[in-house]
Amino acid sequence: MKYVFGVDLGGTTVKIGLLDIYGNMQDVWEIPTRKGDGGSHILPDIAEAIRGKMTEKNIEDSEVAGVGIGVPGAVDSNGNVLQAVNLGWEKFNLKEEFHSMVKLPVKAGNDANVAALGECWKGGGKGYSNMLMATLGTGVGGGIIIDGRILNGATGSGGEIGHIHLQDGENDVCGCGNHGCFEQYASATGAVRIAKRVLEKSDAESRLRDLEEITAKDIFDLAKEGDELAVEATKIYGDYLGRGLAAVASTINPEIIVLGGGVSKCGEILFDLLKPSFEKYVFSGCKDCKFALAELGNDAGIYGAAKMFID
Amino acid sequence: MKYVFGVDLGGTTVKIGLLDIYGNMQDVWEIPTRKGDGGSHILPDIAEAIRGKMTEKNIEDSEVAGVGIGVPGAVDSNGNVLQAVNLGWEKFNLKEEFHSMVKLPVKAGNDANVAALGECWKGGGKGYSNMLMATLGTGVGGGIIIDGRILNGATGSGGEIGHIHLQDGENDVCGCGNHGCFEQYASATGAVRIAKRVLEKSDAESRLRDLEEITAKDIFDLAKEGDELAVEATKIYGDYLGRGLAAVASTINPEIIVLGGGVSKCGEILFDLLKPSFEKYVFSGCKDCKFALAELGNDAGIYGAAKMFID
Repeated sequence: MKYVFGVDLGGTTVKIGLLDIYGNMQDVWEIPTRKGDGGSHILPDIAEAIRGKMTEKNIEDSEVAGVGIGVPGAVDSNGNVLQAVNLGWEKFNLKEEFHSMVKLPVKAGNDANVAALGECWKGGGKGYSNMLMATLGTGVGGGIIIDGRILNGATGSGGEIGHIHLQDGENDVCGCGNHGCFEQYASATGAVRIAKRVLEKSDAESRLRDLEEITAKDIFDLAKEGDELAVEATKIYGDYLGRGLAAVASTINPEIIVLGGGVSKCGEILFDLLKPSFEKYVFSGCKDCKFALAELGNDAGIYGAAKMFID
Repeated sequence: MKYVFGVDLGGTTVKIGLLDIYGNMQDVWEIPTRKGDGGSHILPDIAEAIRGKMTEKNIEDSEVAGVGIGVPGAVDSNGNVLQAVNLGWEKFNLKEEFHSMVKLPVKAGNDANVAALGECWKGGGKGYSNMLMATLGTGVGGGIIIDGRILNGATGSGGEIGHIHLQDGENDVCGCGNHGCFEQYASATGAVRIAKRVLEKSDAESRLRDLEEITAKDIFDLAKEGDELAVEATKIYGDYLGRGLAAVASTINPEIIVLGGGVSKCGEILFDLLKPSFEKYVFSGCKDCKFALAELGNDAGIYGAAKMFID
């Protein structure tokens, strides 16, 4: 075996990587995600792209370990897609169906979980085999790696940590329909929710008040510049983030927690903000946990998808 | 291979089982746990017991797949005991050390995790490969099985769910030093704590007031008989239990949750008590989760220890 393909299937584009079995990226390219007709073109398009690349590079079937693919939806350990609303897909066995098209071994996982595996292999979690990745974006996504393998869960929702209940008495509704979910506070949207509440409660001046629309980046930037209400908002944000991560860490006892997504771009200050509450709330047996920032950005999905075929 | 040994190492006795590789118990016996001298006699005693049984039954080394052992302490995926205070043990590699004594392949795990594996194989979780076991005893212990394997975690604290933070503003201190841990409410001790608070808050009559010392069993028994304050206490108990289990289930997405330990003896009424809050707080993608009671009692540890050698 010489090669493996890693596929990161997104709602707009499909990113495909050709890697050698040591994990060195040999080629990477994109094709559009053709979502029409119930998503029925997507897999044939990917199969054609991969077979085309093999012809172009004179790669034999016997040289390819397999094709790993990360899907924006729930995928179980047997390669069943349980739902992938954005692609127009209903329940089917992707592993078998895609194998019949691409004529190579196939493994599939949820995109967030696969990206976590990529970060564990080549990114922020490199060198560790028990990792929690938390993606702090519009929502809070996540992925859990146990002994080097993805925790998919019964119905592909393993590592979907954004909907752990964190706060009683929340009036705002989460996207999932509940109230008081982790992601209502620890996402970029959550940071803005927190900042608005801080502004409402106080009469103090803040440059946040001058902004027509507040973003998470504004809050962290102004906090760095010493804006008091922005500082207060980031402290509250860190408190929630630490509490939520502590709940997960107390359950799975990770070696390292890797933070990705838009909010993680504010850097290592996040660790200072979350650690007081993380250390307060986490079970003492799970306290020795490292923190790191994600490193692979958009390539995490390709690396993780490929890793499913590399021991 | 014909046989496997399963060892459940407790603080007072060591329970040893000889199983065939289909999981049928062929023999089970106990030896005392000799804890003196820093626990240095424990492993030689077990090795001697196993070798003796092999001689007695004319079993060759080549017929034994291995010896699995559950330890009352933190054990990582490499067979390192990180701590086992009750045995007088400090950190060492049990897998290697015990192998040098018993001359057979060895695997080791934390006793609660190993018991969970046993329940997943032969007990309440039979037929499932993604399971959470919660043991509701003096504290709340747990074990997590993912794709049929134990989730040990980085430092052997995987599945130690009793110390997830559940309640702000708790004044009582948990055994771990924190305030508001899951086990402060969902353990047998927690049920008593809840009942005492219910009694304090109310002037209503209750047969609980006649008891010199209240136990969890009293509370559930009197609730069944219609004692109003006992009923109220069990409802609050169920609310906490459901919340804590929902937090874990939202992270690991189990197929089934198995309840064991003393409190589980009150039976399936526990499911009715916990489900309203479980369903309220769990992430929708993890909602289709079954519940069952543990079935193996004290044999769960032996079965689980043996299972580590049986695919």
